[in-house]
Amino acid sequence: MKTILINGLVLTMEADWKPAYLDIVINDQRIEKVEQLSDDERKQYINQGYQCVDMANKVVMPGFVNTHGHAAMTLLRSYADDLPLQQWLEDKIWPFEAKLTADDIYWGTKLAIIEMLETGTTCFTDMYFEMEQVAKAVEEMGIRACLSRGMIGVAPNRDIALSESEQFISQWNQAAEGRITCTLGPHAPYTCPPDYLKKVVELANKLDVPIQIHVSETEKEVNDCKEMYGASPVKHLENIGLFSRPTIAAHCVHLDDNDIDIMHKHNVTISHNPSSNLKLASGIAPLKKYIDKGLTVGIGTDGCSSNNNLDMLEELKLASLIHKGNTYDPTLIPARKALEMATIEGAKALFLDEVIGSIAPGKQADIIAFSLDKSLYYPSFDITSLLVYSANSRDISDVFIAGKQIMKNRRLEFNKQEIFQQVQDRAQNIAKEIAATK
Amino acid sequence: MKTILINGLVLTMEADWKPAYLDIVINDQRIEKVEQLSDDERKQYINQGYQCVDMANKVVMPGFVNTHGHAAMTLLRSYADDLPLQQWLEDKIWPFEAKLTADDIYWGTKLAIIEMLETGTTCFTDMYFEMEQVAKAVEEMGIRACLSRGMIGVAPNRDIALSESEQFISQWNQAAEGRITCTLGPHAPYTCPPDYLKKVVELANKLDVPIQIHVSETEKEVNDCKEMYGASPVKHLENIGLFSRPTIAAHCVHLDDNDIDIMHKHNVTISHNPSSNLKLASGIAPLKKYIDKGLTVGIGTDGCSSNNNLDMLEELKLASLIHKGNTYDPTLIPARKALEMATIEGAKALFLDEVIGSIAPGKQADIIAFSLDKSLYYPSFDITSLLVYSANSRDISDVFIAGKQIMKNRRLEFNKQEIFQQVQDRAQNIAKEIAATK
Repeated sequence: MKTILINGLVLTMEADWKPAYLDIVINDQRIEKVEQLSDDERKQYINQGYQCVDMANKVVMPGFVNTHGHAAMTLLRSYADDLPLQQWLEDKIWPFEAKLTADDIYWGTKLAIIEMLETGTTCFTDMYFEMEQVAKAVEEMGIRACLSRGMIGVAPNRDIALSESEQFISQWNQAAEGRITCTLGPHAPYTCPPDYLKKVVELANKLDVPIQIHVSETEKEVNDCKEMYGASPVKHLENIGLFSRPTIAAHCVHLDDNDIDIMHKHNVTISHNPSSNLKLASGIAPLKKYIDKGLTVGIGTDGCSSNNNLDMLEELKLASLIHKGNTYDPTLIPARKALEMATIEGAKALFLDEVIGSIAPGKQADIIAFSLDKSLYYPSFDITSLLVYSANSRDISDVFIAGKQIMKNRRLEFNKQEIFQQVQDRAQNIAKEIAATK
Repeated sequence: MKTILINGLVLTMEADWKPAYLDIVINDQRIEKVEQLSDDERKQYINQGYQCVDMANKVVMPGFVNTHGHAAMTLLRSYADDLPLQQWLEDKIWPFEAKLTADDIYWGTKLAIIEMLETGTTCFTDMYFEMEQVAKAVEEMGIRACLSRGMIGVAPNRDIALSESEQFISQWNQAAEGRITCTLGPHAPYTCPPDYLKKVVELANKLDVPIQIHVSETEKEVNDCKEMYGASPVKHLENIGLFSRPTIAAHCVHLDDNDIDIMHKHNVTISHNPSSNLKLASGIAPLKKYIDKGLTVGIGTDGCSSNNNLDMLEELKLASLIHKGNTYDPTLIPARKALEMATIEGAKALFLDEVIGSIAPGKQADIIAFSLDKSLYYPSFDITSLLVYSANSRDISDVFIAGKQIMKNRRLEFNKQEIFQQVQDRAQNIAKEIAATK
């Protein structure tokens, strides 16, 4: 499909970006040109069969990149909140997850994708199980995703998880016309012993994929690791050789200066997940230090049990606000930086910045548009400030992924009611089964 | 007007509230009855001329009470962000505010009211100037408000501010069919010397109105007060006798244990404004201590320069999340408490809880409804959790204030485009004038 997007106010997220009226030429999956076209040029494109989409009065930017989550955890939304961590995990989350079937994962992921598309996310990251179902949902619904089968090195199925991961990656990496990329997903240093993590690194080398892993989410985890291995989780992972692979470290709430140096040395990237870190009472990450050091930081929503939505706009506002208040520095994470973290920095965090994350010739056409004709966008002095500090994700009107328009004036071509009902019924049945065994 | 709201899932916010299917009978401004009506009873009401509004598949609750703000600061939205505090105030906010005319305040307030109605706020608190304009906008648009003319005791117009306050209160307290209540609004201990605050207390006694004041918003302010008066702002205000009047203290980011005791002794109420406190880097209030002590805490958005919207749902989610993360306690400010803070506790904070804040016979019919048929409300295990952790204010479908339906399936009967344009033009002209003098 060939398309020109005209008359939009474009935030490219390329270096030194400034909001500017630019036209975007899309050829099949990719962006061909980004510049103001003359009337004649526009006509030529239209004569060549390009469809013309008018973005007048809309703000156009790259789609959001969600750098950490567990999509099918939508099934657990509002099932358990406001509980102490262990009680929440042991009494609620784990028993529920133990009952999830492949079909449940399929429908839960579809629900997540509906929500992500409607809130402007064009690429999401997932670490869960029954990943073929996730890949199937991604393929069907047109979104982009970076997928990994979560692996628990202390679980009975530890070796199966490795071989399933390999099989999954062989089948799905670069599938769905390149929209799916895969990584290996060892859960965390405290659930994967060193010998297991070494096998993961070997396999990552063999398959040539990055690794994503939860790192230093809680203080307890850091202290336990120090006690067990005499090193912080970051140092421990370096010792094991994990960082010889491109690595995405989720959370990183509790890194010390030495950890930060190690992260920098190996270009380990971070998914910052502020809602989840607050809701689970993990703490507030020292983001200023990460940014000052030049680490790459993307933004993630985490799963719907610890957030409880997948709204990247809420997440980037929170990321922008919380570190100001926590460090008494109102200049920290300015609006501009927050938008970058949710787009180009997120793409970098996933090692996909040559493919997505900004609006530039050669990149995939993953593009969203905002329609800002609501009270909360007046007066308009600074569009960047409005998007970060005032905006509501419902004003995202259009979503393009790999050049295809998936959402048009907020309309998606999916049977949403079927998905809602499937998820409601399945989740309720699981809850009933659990209640019956108590 | 007489109305019955039927079939809604109602969260009354009365003591021990539980979501329940209840019908609400509204007679003129007030709630007459809250119970499940039989078909016969419904018919009888309809025969008596009650209009019947079907709330099937909607969640019904009291409207939000916004306990702190400066409505017309909408005019400054996106004008200045991410700056050090003094630079932000001296170079940006104060020069802009100095140019605001009565008409500007009128239109800026109308814009704020549009946004508040659309996000479910039925009562807002205001401390600004040209308050007759604010009252006029409130009267015209049907919202409820608690208004004060801001008074700066170190300004040349300090005495005029007092007499204007008296005149404003004489004219507007209980006006607009009782929807307007007034308080006195001395700005803060650091802008109002003791002799001035004593005059304020005298006047408050004479007019029998509460006082609202900014208290301990920043650490600097607390330290300065200790240096100047040998007491914290709270102790200083107690010494002056200010707390002999019912007092609403906005912000309270930096209270120590002794301050908290004083607040408790005098039943001083708090407006907690988390977005503003984070964005201006004031800090994170020790809310757990306030709640453990039994202080009354409402939630406020503050003005649109330090937020930058008026969305109470965003604010209560933030209030619920931030203190969990900041104190490592995931049970703190559970969803239930957050909803109460935004409604009945807010009403208590404004000393209006006999009038508004819950759905109960005798109270004013200030009611909102949510339509929750979107992806982010599935599955539905716990409606309270969904409203706090997942919801989007765009799903607020209906707003009733003093028994009158102001918003109906998201439609307001105001000329929004005129208001948007007025604000855009006025704000831009002021910015141009300022730029021209530089």
